[in-house]
Amino acid sequence: MLARTPATLDAMLRDLPDHWVSAHEGGDTWSPFDVVGHLIHGERTDWVPRARMILEDGEARTFETFDRLAQFAASEGRTLSSLLDEFAEARAASLRDLAVLGLAERDLDRRGRHPAFGPVTLRQLLATWVAHDLDHVVQVSRTLANQYADAVGPWRAYLRIIGQPG
Amino acid sequence: MLARTPATLDAMLRDLPDHWVSAHEGGDTWSPFDVVGHLIHGERTDWVPRARMILEDGEARTFETFDRLAQFAASEGRTLSSLLDEFAEARAASLRDLAVLGLAERDLDRRGRHPAFGPVTLRQLLATWVAHDLDHVVQVSRTLANQYADAVGPWRAYLRIIGQPG
Repeated sequence: MLARTPATLDAMLRDLPDHWVSAHEGGDTWSPFDVVGHLIHGERTDWVPRARMILEDGEARTFETFDRLAQFAASEGRTLSSLLDEFAEARAASLRDLAVLGLAERDLDRRGRHPAFGPVTLRQLLATWVAHDLDHVVQVSRTLANQYADAVGPWRAYLRIIGQPG
Repeated sequence: MLARTPATLDAMLRDLPDHWVSAHEGGDTWSPFDVVGHLIHGERTDWVPRARMILEDGEARTFETFDRLAQFAASEGRTLSSLLDEFAEARAASLRDLAVLGLAERDLDRRGRHPAFGPVTLRQLLATWVAHDLDHVVQVSRTLANQYADAVGPWRAYLRIIGQPG
């Protein structure tokens, strides 16, 4: 599942016109461009680094807090294509690193310490990595679809993806 | 956007183990396998046929009601791979048919008659086609992620994609 996300986002987004790539849902919501940057930051600082910390330090060391806004500075001036390439490379590297860890079934029950939740297992971290990818595929899909919230006219009543008018 | 959906679903689903492909969210909810069959049925009976009906008959003829359950019989005994192939072929054919219609801007305001909504424009039909694809990408993503609803442990609180416990 984790190996698929770069290709999924590539199929959805690469070479899409800028007004789609930078579209968001108002206020502080994220565009598809922002989401790809966020996923890159996760590869660098979150998933494999936390897995290593669980194996090396257990509950003795609390994970670094994940910076949910890091992509705004890191992605500035970049193109979506270069971010998609970087995400694909970073994800492939993460999966190679994970393979090198040679996890056995019993390792999955080893625990680390989350800054908000306290004890969490490696199994929970890995399941969350998968669900987190899919959460952002949903966010990208919903953001794109909501650009047509008015254009669909009465069909809006049938489309769960489009926010219902308040 | 319409040309991208087959590749998006292919990246997400092809060769995924059966327990993911047939996973659903309980009750009458649809699996990824069911969704691909539904999208094929839409290519055959809904989008381009309705566009043609608008251009040929206008509001004089009401669209056929779309059969939301047709895929259960049509997909029986099929493999996901063959459905993904069929969807890609059917979508490519739909887009060729659409190009042949040679739509001009003024055609987009032409109207047909929806069995529930009454008058709808060709512009609304085409926007709905795009949003409908994305709605089902969301459904597939959410269905997959929800298989890990318990596995993610306390991270559930951060994952909008996973239904919150009742």
